[in-house]
Amino acid sequence: MRGKFDCFNMRQRLSPDYYITGILAHDRLVLSQAITLVESQLAADYPLAQAVLDGVLAHTGNSMRIGITGVPGVGKSTFIEVFGQHLTAQGHQLAVLALDPTSQRSGGSLLGDKTRMENLSMNPSAYIRPSPVGNALGGIGHRTRETMLLCEAAGFDIILIETVGVGQSETVVYELVDFFLLLMLAGAGDELQGMKRGIMELADALAITKADGDNGPAANRAQFEYQNALHLFPPTGTGWQPPVLTCSALTNAGMADVWQLIQEHQKLTTQNGHRAQRRQSQQVNWFRELLRQRLDGQFFGQPGIRNRMNDLENRVRQGEILPGKAVGELLG
Amino acid sequence: MRGKFDCFNMRQRLSPDYYITGILAHDRLVLSQAITLVESQLAADYPLAQAVLDGVLAHTGNSMRIGITGVPGVGKSTFIEVFGQHLTAQGHQLAVLALDPTSQRSGGSLLGDKTRMENLSMNPSAYIRPSPVGNALGGIGHRTRETMLLCEAAGFDIILIETVGVGQSETVVYELVDFFLLLMLAGAGDELQGMKRGIMELADALAITKADGDNGPAANRAQFEYQNALHLFPPTGTGWQPPVLTCSALTNAGMADVWQLIQEHQKLTTQNGHRAQRRQSQQVNWFRELLRQRLDGQFFGQPGIRNRMNDLENRVRQGEILPGKAVGELLG
Repeated sequence: MRGKFDCFNMRQRLSPDYYITGILAHDRLVLSQAITLVESQLAADYPLAQAVLDGVLAHTGNSMRIGITGVPGVGKSTFIEVFGQHLTAQGHQLAVLALDPTSQRSGGSLLGDKTRMENLSMNPSAYIRPSPVGNALGGIGHRTRETMLLCEAAGFDIILIETVGVGQSETVVYELVDFFLLLMLAGAGDELQGMKRGIMELADALAITKADGDNGPAANRAQFEYQNALHLFPPTGTGWQPPVLTCSALTNAGMADVWQLIQEHQKLTTQNGHRAQRRQSQQVNWFRELLRQRLDGQFFGQPGIRNRMNDLENRVRQGEILPGKAVGELLG
Repeated sequence: MRGKFDCFNMRQRLSPDYYITGILAHDRLVLSQAITLVESQLAADYPLAQAVLDGVLAHTGNSMRIGITGVPGVGKSTFIEVFGQHLTAQGHQLAVLALDPTSQRSGGSLLGDKTRMENLSMNPSAYIRPSPVGNALGGIGHRTRETMLLCEAAGFDIILIETVGVGQSETVVYELVDFFLLLMLAGAGDELQGMKRGIMELADALAITKADGDNGPAANRAQFEYQNALHLFPPTGTGWQPPVLTCSALTNAGMADVWQLIQEHQKLTTQNGHRAQRRQSQQVNWFRELLRQRLDGQFFGQPGIRNRMNDLENRVRQGEILPGKAVGELLG
């Protein structure tokens, strides 16, 4: 039913109070409408969106923010389906945001496929929402952080942010969360194809998925190997040494361990101040990113500029013109 | 003697031809003057600098561009001193550019210390030049790429770009080179403190330094461990599997191996097209970075904007204001 309202472009503009009151009353319909509002690309929606965010600000920041990434096929959705049930069974209110870099191309979305997270999507303690990735020049345009704040204000105490882990979306998610979980398949090889280099070193933990049946020994071997490898990485600077676990969405094995681990991480980084520090630095980065998006928007909003830019990039790529000169031509 | 001219701020402006002819005649004095010109922050110098770069463009791109990084204490200068002598002994003309992120703070430079690279600095086949890192907002402002092009036009067929490996300078260097070498000390632990996470996965090879005397067995162990770890990393996508070597600037051990390796990498990536592809993508990134710098320059050049920005960042950091609102205040 929600989807109907999300796609309803010609909606009337309501008062900030309508949204704020509804969100703080944990009304999911209003939450969905508010998310649609903050995701809006219409300049006219912007002041209202800001007013709503301002109005709920005092009620945000109290959730555990967890990022989950991994290459296609690693079993992210299945993991979240089972892990999410584990969390709600313990009384948590769970919001799942799927950062979806494909939606800008296809107009579709990760969650368009109705078979994903079938149980979780019917769970009254869970709320699932795709977060489209726009194509702002010079960066990924998205409103996932704003959506996360709205969900926190609406009473969700755990936010899972999923990304398919292609392109730049992992670093975007890393900038949003307190804990970044990388799902991996057993055996170093094909499944690493497509994983961005540098991502392993961002992870707060690795979980080897599909550790069940015949795959068990391979998963254990992978756990041992990755654990050794991670010891050779530079330290995180937070006193936390990223561990490697195994889990199975089929047998539920390891789900409690992953949750236990995330809680330990939160305890440690809360005590030593790194959690607050990470969030503060994320806030500042978010400010800089928004400023950049607005400045880019002013520049790239000029008529014809994108075509001229593409043309110049091609000439730069072919070595026909030096970048400095190309910039000069573009800026006139 | 060169230093005198590099620091000569009140120099008169000469014709593009003076620089172009001098550079193509491999005149080092003129090369140094041209580098000072492209490094100039004066807007009035910009058209001349562009004209010089344009004039030498056809003579650039023919060197091997090698980046070298590692934490302080790993022995970068000593490595380059010995490795550089190895290269020039084989008839190569070597330019060493030191990307220096400290110079913006202290006004000093890595190479201010005259004891560094003593032999190489007197070697007639070598040219050593620090490349200051400016403090352009929103990115590292520097002219290392332009300096590299000038050196190529001046006949240097190998460019070594060194960075102390703190902050963002490694990724800057990675964007400049064909081959990125990470120097490491034996034993995972203290020496990794200060190394940026994510950097290991950018490396085309690791070299364990100080593999001599009592340190030999530890270096061999480290080589074995890192080699195993690197196999667990996502593939580079170029058909190249980053190897781990050991070397010693004391005994010269491994220097020939490192050079051999870099040549193999060049051969492979030239044949499979990845070298050209990497350079093309670097060109486009350079264009985007320059465009960004110019746009940032326009914005941050406004009087008082930096103070207002700092003030807003502090309020954002403390959670007193949402970034979206702060951006609105800044843009007015």
